[in-house]
Amino acid sequence: MTIEASGQDGSSGTRSRRLRLGMVGGGRGAFIGAVHRIAARLDDRWTLVAGALSSSPEKARASGADLLLDPERVYDGAAAMAAGEAARDDRIDAVAIVTPNFAHHEPAKAFLEAGFHVICDKPLTTSLDQARELADLARTKGVVFAVTHNYTGYPLVREARALVRSGAIGAVRVVQVEYAQDWLATRIEEEGQKQAAWRTDPAKSGPAGSVGDIGSHAFNLAEFVAGVKVERLCADLTAFAPGRRLDDNAHMLLRFEGGARGALWCSQVAVGEENALTLRIYGETGSLSWAQENPNVLVHTPIGEPPRLIRRNGAGAGAVSQRVSRTPSGHPEGYLEGFANLYSDIADQIEARLAGTSAPPEALDVPTVDDGVRGVAFIEAAVRSAKADARWEAIQAG
Amino acid sequence: MTIEASGQDGSSGTRSRRLRLGMVGGGRGAFIGAVHRIAARLDDRWTLVAGALSSSPEKARASGADLLLDPERVYDGAAAMAAGEAARDDRIDAVAIVTPNFAHHEPAKAFLEAGFHVICDKPLTTSLDQARELADLARTKGVVFAVTHNYTGYPLVREARALVRSGAIGAVRVVQVEYAQDWLATRIEEEGQKQAAWRTDPAKSGPAGSVGDIGSHAFNLAEFVAGVKVERLCADLTAFAPGRRLDDNAHMLLRFEGGARGALWCSQVAVGEENALTLRIYGETGSLSWAQENPNVLVHTPIGEPPRLIRRNGAGAGAVSQRVSRTPSGHPEGYLEGFANLYSDIADQIEARLAGTSAPPEALDVPTVDDGVRGVAFIEAAVRSAKADARWEAIQAG
Amino acid sequence: MTIEASGQDGSSGTRSRRLRLGMVGGGRGAFIGAVHRIAARLDDRWTLVAGALSSSPEKARASGADLLLDPERVYDGAAAMAAGEAARDDRIDAVAIVTPNFAHHEPAKAFLEAGFHVICDKPLTTSLDQARELADLARTKGVVFAVTHNYTGYPLVREARALVRSGAIGAVRVVQVEYAQDWLATRIEEEGQKQAAWRTDPAKSGPAGSVGDIGSHAFNLAEFVAGVKVERLCADLTAFAPGRRLDDNAHMLLRFEGGARGALWCSQVAVGEENALTLRIYGETGSLSWAQENPNVLVHTPIGEPPRLIRRNGAGAGAVSQRVSRTPSGHPEGYLEGFANLYSDIADQIEARLAGTSAPPEALDVPTVDDGVRGVAFIEAAVRSAKADARWEAIQAG
Amino acid sequence: MTIEASGQDGSSGTRSRRLRLGMVGGGRGAFIGAVHRIAARLDDRWTLVAGALSSSPEKARASGADLLLDPERVYDGAAAMAAGEAARDDRIDAVAIVTPNFAHHEPAKAFLEAGFHVICDKPLTTSLDQARELADLARTKGVVFAVTHNYTGYPLVREARALVRSGAIGAVRVVQVEYAQDWLATRIEEEGQKQAAWRTDPAKSGPAGSVGDIGSHAFNLAEFVAGVKVERLCADLTAFAPGRRLDDNAHMLLRFEGGARGALWCSQVAVGEENALTLRIYGETGSLSWAQENPNVLVHTPIGEPPRLIRRNGAGAGAVSQRVSRTPSGHPEGYLEGFANLYSDIADQIEARLAGTSAPPEALDVPTVDDGVRGVAFIEAAVRSAKADARWEAIQAG
Repeated sequence: MTIEASGQDGSSGTRSRRLRLGMVGGGRGAFIGAVHRIAARLDDRWTLVAGALSSSPEKARASGADLLLDPERVYDGAAAMAAGEAARDDRIDAVAIVTPNFAHHEPAKAFLEAGFHVICDKPLTTSLDQARELADLARTKGVVFAVTHNYTGYPLVREARALVRSGAIGAVRVVQVEYAQDWLATRIEEEGQKQAAWRTDPAKSGPAGSVGDIGSHAFNLAEFVAGVKVERLCADLTAFAPGRRLDDNAHMLLRFEGGARGALWCSQVAVGEENALTLRIYGETGSLSWAQENPNVLVHTPIGEPPRLIRRNGAGAGAVSQRVSRTPSGHPEGYLEGFANLYSDIADQIEARLAGTSAPPEALDVPTVDDGVRGVAFIEAAVRSAKADARWEAIQAG
Repeated sequence: MTIEASGQDGSSGTRSRRLRLGMVGGGRGAFIGAVHRIAARLDDRWTLVAGALSSSPEKARASGADLLLDPERVYDGAAAMAAGEAARDDRIDAVAIVTPNFAHHEPAKAFLEAGFHVICDKPLTTSLDQARELADLARTKGVVFAVTHNYTGYPLVREARALVRSGAIGAVRVVQVEYAQDWLATRIEEEGQKQAAWRTDPAKSGPAGSVGDIGSHAFNLAEFVAGVKVERLCADLTAFAPGRRLDDNAHMLLRFEGGARGALWCSQVAVGEENALTLRIYGETGSLSWAQENPNVLVHTPIGEPPRLIRRNGAGAGAVSQRVSRTPSGHPEGYLEGFANLYSDIADQIEARLAGTSAPPEALDVPTVDDGVRGVAFIEAAVRSAKADARWEAIQAG
Repeated sequence: MTIEASGQDGSSGTRSRRLRLGMVGGGRGAFIGAVHRIAARLDDRWTLVAGALSSSPEKARASGADLLLDPERVYDGAAAMAAGEAARDDRIDAVAIVTPNFAHHEPAKAFLEAGFHVICDKPLTTSLDQARELADLARTKGVVFAVTHNYTGYPLVREARALVRSGAIGAVRVVQVEYAQDWLATRIEEEGQKQAAWRTDPAKSGPAGSVGDIGSHAFNLAEFVAGVKVERLCADLTAFAPGRRLDDNAHMLLRFEGGARGALWCSQVAVGEENALTLRIYGETGSLSWAQENPNVLVHTPIGEPPRLIRRNGAGAGAVSQRVSRTPSGHPEGYLEGFANLYSDIADQIEARLAGTSAPPEALDVPTVDDGVRGVAFIEAAVRSAKADARWEAIQAG
Repeated sequence: MTIEASGQDGSSGTRSRRLRLGMVGGGRGAFIGAVHRIAARLDDRWTLVAGALSSSPEKARASGADLLLDPERVYDGAAAMAAGEAARDDRIDAVAIVTPNFAHHEPAKAFLEAGFHVICDKPLTTSLDQARELADLARTKGVVFAVTHNYTGYPLVREARALVRSGAIGAVRVVQVEYAQDWLATRIEEEGQKQAAWRTDPAKSGPAGSVGDIGSHAFNLAEFVAGVKVERLCADLTAFAPGRRLDDNAHMLLRFEGGARGALWCSQVAVGEENALTLRIYGETGSLSWAQENPNVLVHTPIGEPPRLIRRNGAGAGAVSQRVSRTPSGHPEGYLEGFANLYSDIADQIEARLAGTSAPPEALDVPTVDDGVRGVAFIEAAVRSAKADARWEAIQAG
């Protein structure tokens, strides 16, 4: 361990101002909006200045006041906000869209059309057509479009990806990815739990439940680290809670380009599991194992050698993970810090554009709208496969 | 923890002699034969008195001398041994068959026909027809026929089974079972490694590689603990090592009677994994998690409560696991002790027959020839499914 | 796990402004200053507006610019800053002092005399006389004076303290506390490592090395959770690195009021240890175990029952730890979040004073200047004991 | 992992008979006697043929029958047994003494005088004078005298010792050893628990309680692995259970030859701990960490590198630990196997004498009567120190 000045902290940069962030969704009672705000604030690269925080104008205003926003920049809806901000000299540098799944597409489109950089929660949309439309528009407009598959922001996830790329485990053979929770083990959507209600409602969540909510994270993480893409999958989707309309559990077999095989399990009824996203990758000459709930350790086993515990910012951890660490090894960083790494990398990207320079290559490791499209394609393939009794289905992202 | 006299030790029993064991296979250079011998010896219930230890007469004799056997009872083959022993007054009480897979059927049949109790390694046979033949014969002869799915002997595996039966986790929803090793990550069968050679040779191993060698253990363990049977599976089998003729990795989706779903992964190319057999079972009201490499802990999480660490013979461990423990909690027992529990339970069964009484019900938890048949049916279903591009296939044990 | 709106996030409060923070120390190249800033920012309760960031005026100005401070409020020293801020209408609400140990007393005194609330890093001072002087002055002035023994901010440390208070483990018998690091295993102070240089220099660190730097945290944590005070200790201090002038390792026996016994070990030469602060408390009817490097789990074992894994914000975690959590269980929070809890609690205290109300009792769990005095008394007792060949010495804080 | 023939199994040796073992103590209701018997049996090197199993003649006979001993060789006492066995051609090769502490000296002396090899449980005696007497007598007689500090038999404890000797961690600086249990947390000695009764009775246990029962194991293990001897200690002994006459908890500071420092904690009232013997050794260039409850992993951290998990018989494990392993890595071995390693090494020593050759050097790693003397000296030093208010006391073994 070395005790020294931190990497990500704003104090080490040369900057003349914080970037200005707007937010769609995330008003009182929301969950992920608050996470985005903390993530944006953590490294002091962003300041929240505007919002369309709720579809209820009253709640939007109250939420804006909570957040000490200038009432002038508390908008009634995304369209009004896109227009209003576009008209200002001190307009936002980017918008964060943190609404439920079904309400990503419309605001994203509005802000893209107005030329803003976009940060959107996942899954990108509830249909592949909408997702592709956003990707095309983002490409046309030439803006930054990040999708917050936040688990890619963990330092040791970045480290794992770099190790695979460097050949440390050889050609990938097997990928085991799981994302298990238990908060939907019973039908709490019937008991007024707002987060459960929209996630189990096809109208708001889209065609999938657990597959969209957490399976898409697992899929993204697997591809992000393994560096090979899933070509086909074979899925068995279940709704265990009686009467639930969307899957709350899914098992899949995966076939990757290049011949790797794998399995994905996601569940929201796995009693005792909290947020158990785990990834294990086995290659010809080594393996890697990482678990989100204990994210400061990465196990790397070269063939024929003892497993090595690579600890965040510790001995054997490379530059890529040191760059996105704030504290010395042994001082645990967690979910919020990992999420914040996305915001700081996005800041790097946008500041580079403002300065007419290039962002550091490491800052480009943030999932993009294209990854968002793949996520939606994954969801659709899983749903198709399950309907066809677990037939192999291709991921049709392209 | 309580320090007191142990359960399984022979000293607590009332007996006039040790049971006499014979062994087919297990000569010099063998692996599992020595394990069976230690297991039989551990609780002082058995004494090895006869053997057909190798197909090479010379090696058979040398191995017999190593084991201090009476040369008169060192036989050249199973048939000779069955005949020879049947003719003696002090004949063996049971025979242990510890040869490679393809060489189980013939000796098992010979000893069954001679009326001996049989202890046979897994998988029972290399074809379902042969397996069923043995089951029928065992039934006809009315003998004890145990199949050493030894992982069922671990005290906390028994505890887990009892907890499921007692309703501690409610109706089973999800079963995740894995068995990962790495010793076949490269083609060591080409380098004179005897254990690898027969396991990767279809003539000796049967139609499956990893699926038969370790997948069958995983399958058995899952059913043993979950208390529900797999009805159908969907399998993707791979041989990753270039040129290998049998699978060294398999992924399966499982559907259980009663609606539970699951996944099974077995691999012998998972670099860094030694003998990573793990089982997780999620029910409506709780879950259980156990790992063979750390077998003295069972995690039980009742819904809405913190996970509880049930430690072998420790607080919260029930009578079923205390019965098969020798040492106080905190004094780790392992693979050999778990294996020995099968031998001691088999001894209970045989002694009860000799005495004309009934064995304690707990002593009947040893896998039987019917479980052996299911294991072979599982292997055949997996191979069929994989050939049909992972189509759902039924387990045809019945 | 429940996914819902977070507790500490600013959005849930009713407030009209953020509190204004000033900082002494923490300029370019510093470590703990950046941590304080992130901690203050995390929950959006504070905004940094002024600083005397370095003893070098040039560096102070550059550091102020890094942090986007108004140049008018970037001061050349603590005295100037205390005077300057006292003269402003929008003066700071509190000052954070984050200089090396020897440079705490003077600025703390200056800001106290000017009537400011003070947040001071640990150990409070390098002599007990100075510490008592600050405590007296803080009392006279009636201000909030917090000492950042930040490990008390971890949700499950608060939970552990509450469990002990509630009688969950009965009367405390044994306390085992350790704080092990390895970054000073070699004499990196000779190689220009600035953090090591001042920590191993008696002129800047005071009479103790590891005992002051980390032993004081361990001592504070033990008393904080155990709820009983150390009366006497018996210490063996060592400087293992050749030529080092201050201890880099210490072993102590502890005797607590009420009869509990314990041991404290702190080391900065424990190769392989990063920031291994661990605490185990054994009472008559239960025990608790917590480790800083894996802070989202607290093990609670009631006598005669299996250990229970209490997870932050998870099943079985009480209100006291939920209050200081931002994310659902399973979404790890770490060092920065724990540190931030102190800042948010201090904000609660100061806002209550501004509003003429009382802070919630839970917000008073922040270590105070009196805890700071105890910390210095602990250091002095350890040094005295070690000089007298590990004679028992009393903690003379009173 | 490699699957191959095992090391310790009798089948690999060349031998004409099993060694004959006698036992003093270990009758019905005893604990450690059964452990010794399993340990002796495990590798098929010994056969139990004689015993003075209880001080009650009736119980001795019943116990002999339980164990299927020839009634002629079931003796009424140690003296009778020493005489009886000495008179036989097929006399025992060694005697195992497994009585409570106070009843070690007399039988050991009787068997030594009759020229038998002796295996004695720990602590060797209840006074240093008696211990030295046995050591002198053993030396005079030239016999093997082993003391069953069984934790030295764990493969990875041997590995750790070899690593320290090889210089893998450099000069030892810090040794942290603990042995915590909870079974005496309440006064179960008052409730008829036989094991508790003699251990808490000064007449049977000697001058110390936990220090003799488990502290002596911890002390032995620390010296065994660290390879340096404790010169002085400073001890605080406590009896927490009201009315208990011997310590049930002890804390000690340790000073080793060569300058290493350490701490020892033993407790039998540490609620939640079962048999938590742990050892951590920190040297100039590396560290080692091992825990008895999870004995198949040894953590080795070279300075500046990630921790390495050395697994029993796995990658990176050396010849010394492979030699005393029976099963491939990943197949956990535990307490009984570790204990059995002592018996097999003692068999090697005795067989070498019978054959007029030398035992392999690795077989000499079994604690001897001299280690037994050091154990008693440790106990006496701890008791002296505690009586003198934790004054430094020397270990007076020499």
